Amino acid sequence: METLKIVKIGGNIIDDNEALHAFLTMFAALSGPKILVHGGGRSATKLAQQMGVDVKMTNGRRITDKETLDIITMVYAGKINTNIVAKLQAAECNALGFSGADGNTMVSVKRPVKDIDFGFVGDVEKVNTKILKVLLDQDVTPVFCAITHENGQLLNTNADTIASELAIGFAKEFQTELYYCFEKNGVLRDVDDDDSVIENISSSTYAKLVTDGVISDGMLPKLDNCMYAVNNKVEKVCIGKWDTFMKTNTKLTTIRK
Amino acid sequence: METLKIVKIGGNIIDDNEALHAFLTMFAALSGPKILVHGGGRSATKLAQQMGVDVKMTNGRRITDKETLDIITMVYAGKINTNIVAKLQAAECNALGFSGADGNTMVSVKRPVKDIDFGFVGDVEKVNTKILKVLLDQDVTPVFCAITHENGQLLNTNADTIASELAIGFAKEFQTELYYCFEKNGVLRDVDDDDSVIENISSSTYAKLVTDGVISDGMLPKLDNCMYAVNNKVEKVCIGKWDTFMKTNTKLTTIRK
Repeated sequence: METLKIVKIGGNIIDDNEALHAFLTMFAALSGPKILVHGGGRSATKLAQQMGVDVKMTNGRRITDKETLDIITMVYAGKINTNIVAKLQAAECNALGFSGADGNTMVSVKRPVKDIDFGFVGDVEKVNTKILKVLLDQDVTPVFCAITHENGQLLNTNADTIASELAIGFAKEFQTELYYCFEKNGVLRDVDDDDSVIENISSSTYAKLVTDGVISDGMLPKLDNCMYAVNNKVEKVCIGKWDTFMKTNTKLTTIRK
Repeated sequence: METLKIVKIGGNIIDDNEALHAFLTMFAALSGPKILVHGGGRSATKLAQQMGVDVKMTNGRRITDKETLDIITMVYAGKINTNIVAKLQAAECNALGFSGADGNTMVSVKRPVKDIDFGFVGDVEKVNTKILKVLLDQDVTPVFCAITHENGQLLNTNADTIASELAIGFAKEFQTELYYCFEKNGVLRDVDDDDSVIENISSSTYAKLVTDGVISDGMLPKLDNCMYAVNNKVEKVCIGKWDTFMKTNTKLTTIRK
């Protein structure tokens, strides 16, 4: 089976023009079918401030009300996505931007209100790969922003999840590889030591890393998402600095089933 | 040859939620391959005001500086395009949003500086129909915002022109029909009389309408653009209120070669 690479980038690349340019040049040169997924970085918060819209947080988590959804749609689907697509075109990569509403590619469900009402936040329910596959066959590179929809209602969705759901959705047609570009060299045994990269994680070693407290806090949902991917037929998940993905002699974390 | 309908809407529909919903319901129900092109309405100006960005005008024409281009990208490609695509999905029309950078579909040239420097404004040079044709064959409906690109530089582009260039670009593969949704019933002989619709215009009658001063001011570039389309193998161009396009017994203006 042919390999499909799905690469996810976040704020540390998106918010840094030089890093973004260098990354996109590398990404454009990757051979074979590929998909890029991007988060929003700090631009949405910046625009909200400029417009005098309050950023609402509950227990440290952003609440997406109607105004915030509009801002996210403008920044993620408008400014960031369109500019990334244009920059990839300049690098001779035939990119095409997507929200999950485009081609009905990513359908989600508005998160039910329990203790917290997160507002217009969606949890992915279904990936429709057909249109994407047709485009990949034409050497088009889809570029996804972190927005999905439920029956036409746009919903703010975690970019890591969008990347993993795409990788899982395509696992029948491709050998899918997921790359999470990270600000550190990988998953670290000691957060203060950038050289303490755990190079390989599998289902059997993962449980121990969690019970030993090596993986905790913010890394826990991130790695749960990775384990979920490899347990659903994704070939491997790599976590590390983007420029290490291209090199064979540098450390990064590779997760397999 | 199969017919391809290309419909362009502007501010009078986009800025009115009820009108937009009614229009999109009608548009979703149109049979056969179709493309929607939308302008930006007044939302870009509104956002600029909210952000404290000056709208720069010279001789009544907007200048697109870097800040304005960012705003246009957020509003046209982000808010308006993504919401229209989502609303069409809700109406069971498999829409997919485009700027000209997406799939490299619409390449333009930055307008040369003569008397006025319009800034980041592009004049369309080339339409690449291949990817669009592949998607139309999959029953996907492309939705274009008024942004093109030149080697990765996004450029603000007239939406009427995008619609006509798409119609011309597809004239080899389809019998293309262009529909300009207008705030009036069509091209009027007397601007104060909404019933004075000129129902048919051809190359031969057009020249006389111009010399007689019936077509002047803002209608002149609009109709020049229509004549350019029919002189380049577009089957017909219709101008009128959108809800008349579906009816056979109401007046509108039809332009043929």
